[in-house]
Amino acid sequence: MRVRHKPWAKDKLLSHPEFVITDPKSHIGEWQSVFSSACPIHVEIGAGKGQFITNMAKQNPDINFIGIEIQESIIVSALDKCIDSQLKNVRLINGDANELTDFFSENEVAAIYLNFSDPWPKNRHEKRRLTYRSFLAQYEYILNSKGHICLKTDNQGLFEYSLESFSKYGLYLQNISLDLHHSHFKEENVMTEYEEKFSSKGHRIYRCEAHFSE
Amino acid sequence: MRVRHKPWAKDKLLSHPEFVITDPKSHIGEWQSVFSSACPIHVEIGAGKGQFITNMAKQNPDINFIGIEIQESIIVSALDKCIDSQLKNVRLINGDANELTDFFSENEVAAIYLNFSDPWPKNRHEKRRLTYRSFLAQYEYILNSKGHICLKTDNQGLFEYSLESFSKYGLYLQNISLDLHHSHFKEENVMTEYEEKFSSKGHRIYRCEAHFSE
Repeated sequence: MRVRHKPWAKDKLLSHPEFVITDPKSHIGEWQSVFSSACPIHVEIGAGKGQFITNMAKQNPDINFIGIEIQESIIVSALDKCIDSQLKNVRLINGDANELTDFFSENEVAAIYLNFSDPWPKNRHEKRRLTYRSFLAQYEYILNSKGHICLKTDNQGLFEYSLESFSKYGLYLQNISLDLHHSHFKEENVMTEYEEKFSSKGHRIYRCEAHFSE
Repeated sequence: MRVRHKPWAKDKLLSHPEFVITDPKSHIGEWQSVFSSACPIHVEIGAGKGQFITNMAKQNPDINFIGIEIQESIIVSALDKCIDSQLKNVRLINGDANELTDFFSENEVAAIYLNFSDPWPKNRHEKRRLTYRSFLAQYEYILNSKGHICLKTDNQGLFEYSLESFSKYGLYLQNISLDLHHSHFKEENVMTEYEEKFSSKGHRIYRCEAHFSE
Protein backbone atom coordinates (compact mmCIF):
# COMPACT_ATOMS: atom_id res chain seq x y z
CA MET A 1 0.00 0.00 0.00
CA ARG A 2 1.45 3.37 -1.00
CA VAL A 3 0.72 6.04 1.56
CA ARG A 4 1.68 9.61 2.30
CA HIS A 5 4.63 9.83 4.71
CA LYS A 6 3.56 11.03 8.12
CA PRO A 7 6.61 12.37 9.99
CA TRP A 8 4.63 12.57 13.24
CA ALA A 9 3.53 8.93 13.11
CA LYS A 10 6.49 7.55 15.06
CA ASP A 11 5.94 9.84 18.01
CA LYS A 12 2.24 9.08 18.09
CA LEU A 13 2.91 5.34 18.13
CA LEU A 14 5.37 5.82 21.01
CA SER A 15 2.87 7.86 22.99
CA HIS A 16 0.30 5.03 23.13
CA PRO A 17 1.99 2.11 24.86
CA GLU A 18 -1.46 0.83 25.92
CA PHE A 19 -1.98 -0.24 22.30
CA VAL A 20 1.40 -0.18 20.53
CA ILE A 21 3.98 -2.67 21.74
CA THR A 22 7.35 -1.10 21.00
CA ASP A 23 9.47 -3.96 22.35
CA PRO A 24 7.65 -7.05 21.05
CA LYS A 25 10.68 -9.32 21.44
CA SER A 26 10.64 -8.79 25.19
CA HIS A 27 7.17 -10.37 25.38
CA ILE A 28 8.06 -13.62 23.64
CA GLY A 29 6.32 -16.49 25.38
CA GLU A 30 4.47 -14.13 27.67
CA TRP A 31 1.90 -12.39 25.46
CA GLN A 32 -1.00 -13.45 27.63
CA SER A 33 0.31 -11.18 30.39
CA VAL A 34 0.13 -8.19 28.01
CA PHE A 35 -3.64 -8.57 27.83
CA SER A 36 -6.15 -8.23 30.66
CA SER A 37 -7.39 -11.79 30.20
CA ALA A 38 -5.85 -15.04 29.01
CA CYS A 39 -7.44 -15.87 25.66
CA PRO A 40 -6.31 -17.41 22.38
CA ILE A 41 -4.02 -15.09 20.42
CA HIS A 42 -4.81 -14.31 16.78
CA VAL A 43 -2.25 -12.42 14.69
CA GLU A 44 -2.89 -10.41 11.54
CA ILE A 45 0.21 -9.96 9.40
CA GLY A 46 -0.07 -6.73 7.44
CA ALA A 47 -2.81 -5.18 9.53
CA GLY A 48 -2.86 -2.00 7.46
CA LYS A 49 -5.23 0.66 8.71
CA GLY A 50 -6.74 -1.75 11.22
CA GLN A 51 -10.38 -2.02 10.16
CA PHE A 52 -10.30 -5.82 10.10
CA ILE A 53 -8.53 -6.38 13.40
CA THR A 54 -10.50 -3.80 15.36
CA ASN A 55 -13.85 -5.08 14.08
CA MET A 56 -12.77 -8.67 14.72
CA ALA A 57 -11.81 -7.63 18.26
CA LYS A 58 -15.21 -6.05 18.85
CA GLN A 59 -17.01 -9.18 17.65
CA ASN A 60 -14.74 -11.60 19.48
CA PRO A 61 -14.07 -10.39 23.03
CA ASP A 62 -12.73 -13.84 23.98
CA ILE A 63 -9.84 -13.61 21.54
CA ASN A 64 -6.74 -11.44 21.93
CA PHE A 65 -5.67 -9.86 18.64
CA ILE A 66 -2.24 -8.64 17.61
CA GLY A 67 -1.84 -6.66 14.40
CA ILE A 68 1.58 -6.44 12.77
CA GLU A 69 2.23 -3.76 10.16
CA ILE A 70 5.62 -2.67 8.89
CA GLN A 71 4.67 0.85 7.73
CA GLU A 72 4.35 3.34 10.58
CA SER A 73 2.40 5.84 8.44
CA ILE A 74 -0.28 3.15 7.97
CA ILE A 75 -0.40 1.48 11.39
CA VAL A 76 -1.01 4.91 12.91
CA SER A 77 -4.51 4.74 11.41
CA ALA A 78 -5.04 1.40 13.15
CA LEU A 79 -3.95 3.07 16.36
CA ASP A 80 -6.61 5.75 15.88
CA LYS A 81 -9.27 3.03 15.65
CA CYS A 82 -7.98 1.41 18.84
CA ILE A 83 -8.07 4.76 20.65
CA ASP A 84 -11.58 5.52 19.42
CA SER A 85 -13.02 2.19 20.50
CA GLN A 86 -10.84 1.64 23.59
CA LEU A 87 -10.57 -2.06 22.84
CA LYS A 88 -8.90 -4.14 25.53
CA ASN A 89 -8.15 -7.11 23.31
CA VAL A 90 -6.02 -5.55 20.55
CA ARG A 91 -2.34 -4.69 20.46
CA LEU A 92 -0.29 -3.41 17.53
CA ILE A 93 3.29 -4.12 16.51
CA ASN A 94 5.05 -1.81 14.06
CA GLY A 95 7.34 -4.59 12.86
CA ASP A 96 8.47 -7.00 10.19
CA ALA A 97 6.84 -10.39 9.55
CA ASN A 98 10.33 -11.79 9.00
CA GLU A 99 10.84 -11.51 12.75
CA LEU A 100 7.76 -13.49 13.77
CA THR A 101 9.73 -16.16 15.60
CA ASP A 102 11.45 -13.44 17.62
CA PHE A 103 8.07 -12.06 18.64
CA PHE A 104 6.28 -15.33 19.49
CA SER A 105 7.39 -18.59 21.04
CA GLU A 106 6.48 -22.10 19.88
CA ASN A 107 2.71 -22.80 19.94
CA GLU A 108 1.91 -19.32 21.28
CA VAL A 109 -0.54 -18.35 18.52
CA ALA A 110 -3.94 -19.87 17.60
CA ALA A 111 -4.58 -18.24 14.21
CA ILE A 112 -2.84 -16.11 11.60
CA TYR A 113 -4.67 -13.83 9.16
CA LEU A 114 -3.18 -12.84 5.83
CA ASN A 115 -5.47 -10.25 4.28
CA PHE A 116 -4.77 -8.85 0.82
CA SER A 117 -1.04 -9.33 1.20
CA ASP A 118 1.31 -7.90 -1.40
CA PRO A 119 1.20 -10.43 -4.27
CA TRP A 120 4.82 -9.84 -5.38
CA PRO A 121 3.93 -11.12 -8.86
CA LYS A 122 7.45 -11.33 -10.27
CA ASN A 123 9.05 -14.76 -9.98
CA ARG A 124 12.23 -13.29 -8.55
CA HIS A 125 10.23 -11.89 -5.64
CA GLU A 126 8.62 -15.23 -4.71
CA LYS A 127 10.46 -15.32 -1.37
CA ARG A 128 8.74 -12.11 -0.30
CA ARG A 129 5.23 -13.55 -0.60
CA LEU A 130 3.77 -14.22 2.83
CA THR A 131 2.82 -17.74 1.74
CA TYR A 132 6.36 -18.68 0.65
CA ARG A 133 7.66 -21.74 2.45
CA SER A 134 10.03 -19.82 4.73
CA PHE A 135 7.05 -17.91 6.12
CA LEU A 136 5.04 -21.13 6.43
CA ALA A 137 7.87 -22.55 8.54
CA GLN A 138 7.59 -19.57 10.89
CA TYR A 139 3.81 -19.91 11.07
CA GLU A 140 4.16 -23.63 11.83
CA TYR A 141 6.50 -22.82 14.70
CA ILE A 142 4.40 -20.13 16.40
CA LEU A 143 0.98 -21.75 15.79
CA ASN A 144 -0.35 -24.34 18.20
CA SER A 145 -1.25 -27.82 16.96
CA LYS A 146 -4.81 -26.81 16.10
CA GLY A 147 -3.74 -23.45 14.68
CA HIS A 148 -4.48 -22.32 11.18
CA ILE A 149 -3.77 -19.65 8.59
CA CYS A 150 -6.70 -17.74 7.10
CA LEU A 151 -5.98 -16.14 3.73
CA LYS A 152 -8.06 -13.58 1.83
CA THR A 153 -7.03 -11.92 -1.40
CA ASP A 154 -8.44 -10.56 -4.62
CA ASN A 155 -5.23 -11.43 -6.43
CA GLN A 156 -5.76 -14.56 -8.51
CA GLY A 157 -2.06 -15.24 -8.96
CA LEU A 158 -1.29 -15.00 -5.26
CA PHE A 159 -4.22 -17.28 -4.44
CA GLU A 160 -3.17 -19.94 -6.97
CA TYR A 161 0.41 -19.72 -5.70
CA SER A 162 -0.68 -19.93 -2.07
CA LEU A 163 -2.85 -23.02 -2.58
CA GLU A 164 0.09 -24.77 -4.20
CA SER A 165 2.57 -23.56 -1.58
CA PHE A 166 0.29 -24.67 1.30
CA SER A 167 -0.23 -28.03 -0.36
CA LYS A 168 3.47 -28.59 -1.02
CA TYR A 169 4.24 -27.79 2.61
CA GLY A 170 1.77 -30.48 3.69
CA LEU A 171 -0.93 -28.15 4.98
CA TYR A 172 -4.60 -29.16 4.80
CA LEU A 173 -6.89 -26.80 2.90
CA GLN A 174 -10.34 -26.10 4.29
CA ASN A 175 -13.23 -23.71 3.78
CA ILE A 176 -12.14 -22.56 0.35
CA SER A 177 -14.27 -19.98 -1.42
CA LEU A 178 -13.50 -18.68 -4.88
CA ASP A 179 -16.07 -15.93 -4.46
CA LEU A 180 -16.31 -15.07 -0.78
CA HIS A 181 -18.85 -12.27 -1.17
CA HIS A 182 -21.30 -14.62 -2.88
CA SER A 183 -20.87 -17.52 -0.48
CA HIS A 184 -22.11 -18.49 2.98
CA PHE A 185 -18.78 -17.25 4.39
CA LYS A 186 -20.02 -13.72 3.72
CA GLU A 187 -22.23 -13.72 6.82
CA GLU A 188 -19.36 -13.82 9.27
CA ASN A 189 -16.81 -12.10 7.05
CA VAL A 190 -15.18 -8.98 8.47
CA MET A 191 -13.95 -6.73 5.68
CA THR A 192 -10.69 -4.82 5.40
CA GLU A 193 -10.63 -1.29 3.96
CA TYR A 194 -9.08 -2.64 0.76
CA GLU A 195 -11.70 -5.40 0.51
CA GLU A 196 -14.59 -2.93 0.74
CA LYS A 197 -13.10 -0.85 -2.03
CA PHE A 198 -12.25 -3.63 -4.44
CA SER A 199 -15.25 -5.88 -3.88
CA SER A 200 -17.49 -2.88 -4.59
CA LYS A 201 -15.74 -2.65 -7.97
CA GLY A 202 -16.75 -6.24 -8.67
CA HIS A 203 -13.44 -7.95 -7.87
CA ARG A 204 -13.82 -11.50 -6.67
CA ILE A 205 -12.46 -12.20 -3.22
CA TYR A 206 -10.78 -15.57 -2.68
CA ARG A 207 -10.40 -17.14 0.77
CA CYS A 208 -9.11 -20.33 2.30
CA GLU A 209 -7.85 -21.80 5.53
CA ALA A 210 -4.69 -23.86 5.82
CA HIS A 211 -4.36 -26.17 8.82
CA PHE A 212 -1.23 -27.90 10.06
CA SER A 213 -3.25 -30.92 11.17
CA GLU A 214 -6.58 -32.34 10.00
CA MET B 1 -25.31 -34.69 -19.78
CA ARG B 2 -28.89 -35.29 -20.97
CA VAL B 3 -29.00 -36.82 -24.41
CA ARG B 4 -31.52 -38.31 -26.78
CA HIS B 5 -31.76 -42.07 -26.39
CA LYS B 6 -30.24 -43.89 -29.36
CA PRO B 7 -31.60 -47.45 -29.50
CA TRP B 8 -29.05 -48.37 -32.16
CA ALA B 9 -26.07 -47.21 -30.07
CA LYS B 10 -25.43 -50.54 -28.34
CA ASP B 11 -25.19 -52.46 -31.61
CA LYS B 12 -22.88 -49.86 -33.10
CA LEU B 13 -20.55 -50.06 -30.09
CA LEU B 14 -20.48 -53.86 -30.38
CA SER B 15 -19.66 -53.71 -34.08
CA HIS B 16 -16.39 -51.79 -33.51
CA PRO B 17 -14.22 -53.95 -31.27
CA GLU B 18 -11.14 -52.20 -32.70
CA PHE B 19 -12.11 -49.15 -30.60
CA VAL B 20 -14.70 -50.26 -28.03
CA ILE B 21 -13.54 -52.73 -25.40
CA THR B 22 -16.62 -54.68 -24.37
CA ASP B 23 -14.89 -56.87 -21.78
CA PRO B 24 -12.59 -54.40 -19.98
CA LYS B 25 -12.22 -56.60 -16.90
CA SER B 26 -10.54 -59.27 -18.97
CA HIS B 27 -7.70 -56.87 -19.81
CA ILE B 28 -6.82 -55.98 -16.24
CA GLY B 29 -3.05 -55.75 -15.89
CA GLU B 30 -2.59 -56.29 -19.63
CA TRP B 31 -3.77 -53.10 -21.26
CA GLN B 32 -0.51 -52.54 -23.03
CA SER B 33 -1.20 -55.60 -25.17
CA VAL B 34 -4.47 -54.04 -26.35
CA PHE B 35 -2.54 -51.24 -28.04
CA SER B 36 -0.06 -51.52 -30.89
CA SER B 37 2.76 -50.04 -28.81
CA ALA B 38 3.64 -50.00 -25.12
CA CYS B 39 3.17 -46.43 -23.90
CA PRO B 40 1.90 -44.76 -20.72
CA ILE B 41 -1.85 -45.16 -20.28
CA HIS B 42 -3.99 -42.08 -19.65
CA VAL B 43 -7.64 -42.52 -18.68
CA GLU B 44 -10.46 -40.02 -19.06
CA ILE B 45 -13.39 -40.68 -16.76
CA GLY B 46 -16.55 -39.35 -18.31
CA ALA B 47 -15.21 -39.08 -21.86
CA GLY B 48 -18.53 -37.81 -23.21
CA LYS B 49 -18.59 -37.29 -26.96
CA GLY B 50 -14.84 -37.82 -27.18
CA GLN B 51 -13.50 -34.50 -28.49
CA PHE B 52 -10.94 -34.21 -25.71
CA ILE B 53 -9.60 -37.74 -25.81
CA THR B 54 -9.40 -37.99 -29.60
CA ASN B 55 -7.63 -34.63 -29.93
CA MET B 56 -5.28 -35.53 -27.08
CA ALA B 57 -4.53 -38.81 -28.86
CA LYS B 58 -3.73 -36.99 -32.11
CA GLN B 59 -1.35 -34.63 -30.30
CA ASN B 60 0.28 -37.30 -28.15
CA PRO B 61 1.03 -40.39 -30.24
CA ASP B 62 3.32 -41.71 -27.48
CA ILE B 63 0.48 -42.02 -24.99
CA ASN B 64 -2.29 -44.63 -25.05
CA PHE B 65 -5.68 -43.17 -24.13
CA ILE B 66 -8.69 -44.94 -22.67
CA GLY B 67 -11.99 -43.09 -22.43
CA ILE B 68 -14.65 -44.33 -20.03
CA GLU B 69 -18.23 -43.18 -20.44
CA ILE B 70 -21.29 -44.72 -18.80
CA GLN B 71 -23.91 -43.53 -21.31
CA GLU B 72 -23.94 -45.54 -24.52
CA SER B 73 -25.92 -42.88 -26.42
CA ILE B 74 -23.06 -40.43 -25.75
CA ILE B 75 -19.99 -42.63 -26.13
CA VAL B 76 -21.25 -43.60 -29.57
CA SER B 77 -20.30 -40.06 -30.68
CA ALA B 78 -16.79 -40.65 -29.35
CA LEU B 79 -16.70 -43.85 -31.38
CA ASP B 80 -17.59 -41.85 -34.52
CA LYS B 81 -14.57 -39.63 -33.94
CA CYS B 82 -12.31 -42.65 -33.49
CA ILE B 83 -13.61 -44.17 -36.72
CA ASP B 84 -13.18 -40.91 -38.63
CA SER B 85 -9.58 -40.39 -37.52
CA GLN B 86 -8.56 -44.05 -37.31
CA LEU B 87 -6.52 -43.40 -34.19
CA LYS B 88 -4.39 -46.32 -33.03
CA ASN B 89 -3.89 -44.99 -29.50
CA VAL B 90 -7.46 -44.66 -28.24
CA ARG B 91 -9.85 -47.22 -26.79
CA LEU B 92 -13.29 -46.68 -25.30
CA ILE B 93 -15.04 -48.40 -22.42
CA ASN B 94 -18.81 -48.08 -22.02
CA GLY B 95 -18.62 -48.58 -18.27
CA ASP B 96 -18.91 -47.25 -14.75
CA ALA B 97 -16.13 -45.37 -12.92
CA ASN B 98 -17.09 -47.28 -9.79
CA GLU B 99 -15.50 -50.34 -11.38
CA LEU B 100 -12.11 -48.75 -12.10
CA THR B 101 -10.18 -51.19 -9.93
CA ASP B 102 -11.80 -54.06 -11.85
CA PHE B 103 -10.61 -52.55 -15.11
CA PHE B 104 -7.04 -51.66 -14.13
CA SER B 105 -4.43 -53.25 -11.90
CA GLU B 106 -2.21 -51.49 -9.36
CA ASN B 107 0.07 -48.85 -10.94
CA GLU B 108 -1.23 -49.56 -14.45
CA VAL B 109 -2.24 -45.96 -15.25
CA ALA B 110 -0.09 -42.79 -15.58
CA ALA B 111 -2.76 -40.07 -15.57
CA ILE B 112 -6.47 -39.62 -14.99
CA TYR B 113 -8.53 -36.80 -16.54
CA LEU B 114 -11.73 -35.55 -14.95
CA ASN B 115 -13.29 -33.07 -17.36
CA PHE B 116 -16.46 -31.21 -16.43
CA SER B 117 -17.68 -34.03 -14.25
CA ASP B 118 -21.19 -33.93 -12.83
CA PRO B 119 -20.94 -31.59 -9.81
CA TRP B 120 -23.65 -33.37 -7.77
CA PRO B 121 -24.23 -30.16 -5.80
CA LYS B 122 -26.51 -31.58 -3.10
CA ASN B 123 -24.69 -32.62 0.07
CA ARG B 124 -26.47 -35.98 0.12
CA HIS B 125 -24.91 -36.78 -3.27
CA GLU B 126 -21.32 -36.05 -2.19
CA LYS B 127 -20.33 -39.70 -2.61
CA ARG B 128 -21.18 -39.53 -6.30
CA ARG B 129 -18.69 -36.75 -7.03
CA LEU B 130 -15.66 -38.12 -8.87
CA THR B 131 -13.35 -36.39 -6.40
CA TYR B 132 -14.96 -37.99 -3.32
CA ARG B 133 -12.47 -39.92 -1.24
CA SER B 134 -13.69 -43.36 -2.33
CA PHE B 135 -12.85 -42.43 -5.93
CA LEU B 136 -9.50 -40.98 -4.87
CA ALA B 137 -8.70 -44.33 -3.24
CA GLN B 138 -9.37 -46.07 -6.56
CA TYR B 139 -7.24 -43.53 -8.45
CA GLU B 140 -4.42 -44.01 -5.95
CA TYR B 141 -4.53 -47.75 -6.54
CA ILE B 142 -4.49 -47.72 -10.33
CA LEU B 143 -2.06 -44.77 -10.76
CA ASN B 144 1.66 -45.35 -10.70
CA SER B 145 3.84 -43.54 -8.16
CA LYS B 146 4.33 -40.54 -10.44
CA GLY B 147 0.72 -40.55 -11.62
CA HIS B 148 -1.61 -37.63 -11.28
CA ILE B 149 -5.20 -36.53 -11.64
CA CYS B 150 -5.96 -33.58 -13.93
CA LEU B 151 -9.25 -31.81 -13.18
CA LYS B 152 -11.08 -29.22 -15.28
CA THR B 153 -14.48 -27.78 -14.48
CA ASP B 154 -16.52 -24.61 -14.78
CA ASN B 155 -18.40 -25.50 -11.61
CA GLN B 156 -17.09 -23.37 -8.75
CA GLY B 157 -18.61 -25.56 -6.05
CA LEU B 158 -17.14 -28.75 -7.47
CA PHE B 159 -13.72 -27.11 -7.78
CA GLU B 160 -13.74 -25.82 -4.19
CA TYR B 161 -14.89 -29.24 -2.96
CA SER B 162 -12.27 -31.04 -5.02
CA LEU B 163 -9.37 -28.90 -3.77
CA GLU B 164 -10.40 -29.64 -0.19
CA SER B 165 -10.98 -33.34 -0.89
CA PHE B 166 -7.59 -33.71 -2.61
CA SER B 167 -5.90 -31.89 0.26
CA LYS B 168 -7.62 -33.96 2.93
CA TYR B 169 -6.57 -37.14 1.15
CA GLY B 170 -2.95 -35.97 1.26
CA LEU B 171 -2.60 -35.19 -2.44
CA TYR B 172 -0.28 -32.42 -3.63
CA LEU B 173 -1.86 -29.68 -5.71
CA GLN B 174 0.02 -28.34 -8.71
CA ASN B 175 -0.56 -26.15 -11.74
CA ILE B 176 -3.73 -24.56 -10.44
CA SER B 177 -5.48 -22.05 -12.64
CA LEU B 178 -8.63 -20.23 -11.61
CA ASP B 179 -9.09 -18.96 -15.16
CA LEU B 180 -7.59 -21.48 -17.53
CA HIS B 181 -8.56 -19.68 -20.74
CA HIS B 182 -6.70 -16.56 -19.64
CA SER B 183 -3.58 -18.34 -18.40
CA HIS B 184 -0.44 -19.84 -19.91
CA PHE B 185 -2.10 -23.27 -19.62
CA LYS B 186 -4.35 -22.24 -22.51
CA GLU B 187 -1.62 -22.90 -25.08
CA GLU B 188 -1.56 -26.63 -24.55
CA ASN B 189 -5.16 -26.97 -23.41
CA VAL B 190 -7.33 -29.39 -25.38
CA MET B 191 -10.98 -28.46 -25.08
CA THR B 192 -13.99 -30.68 -24.56
CA GLU B 193 -17.27 -30.01 -26.39
CA TYR B 194 -18.79 -28.69 -23.16
CA GLU B 195 -15.77 -26.46 -22.51
CA GLU B 196 -16.02 -24.83 -25.95
CA LYS B 197 -19.69 -24.05 -25.39
CA PHE B 198 -19.45 -22.70 -21.86
CA SER B 199 -16.18 -20.80 -22.12
CA SER B 200 -17.58 -19.01 -25.18
CA LYS B 201 -20.40 -17.83 -22.88
CA GLY B 202 -17.83 -16.31 -20.57
CA HIS B 203 -17.76 -19.05 -17.92
CA ARG B 204 -14.45 -19.34 -16.10
CA ILE B 205 -12.73 -22.68 -16.41
CA TYR B 206 -10.86 -23.96 -13.33
CA ARG B 207 -8.09 -26.54 -13.53
CA CYS B 208 -5.63 -28.25 -11.25
CA GLU B 209 -3.46 -31.32 -10.97
CA ALA B 210 -3.35 -33.53 -7.91
CA HIS B 211 -0.27 -35.72 -7.42
CA PHE B 212 0.12 -38.63 -5.04
CA SER B 213 3.79 -37.77 -4.48
CA GLU B 214 5.69 -34.50 -4.75
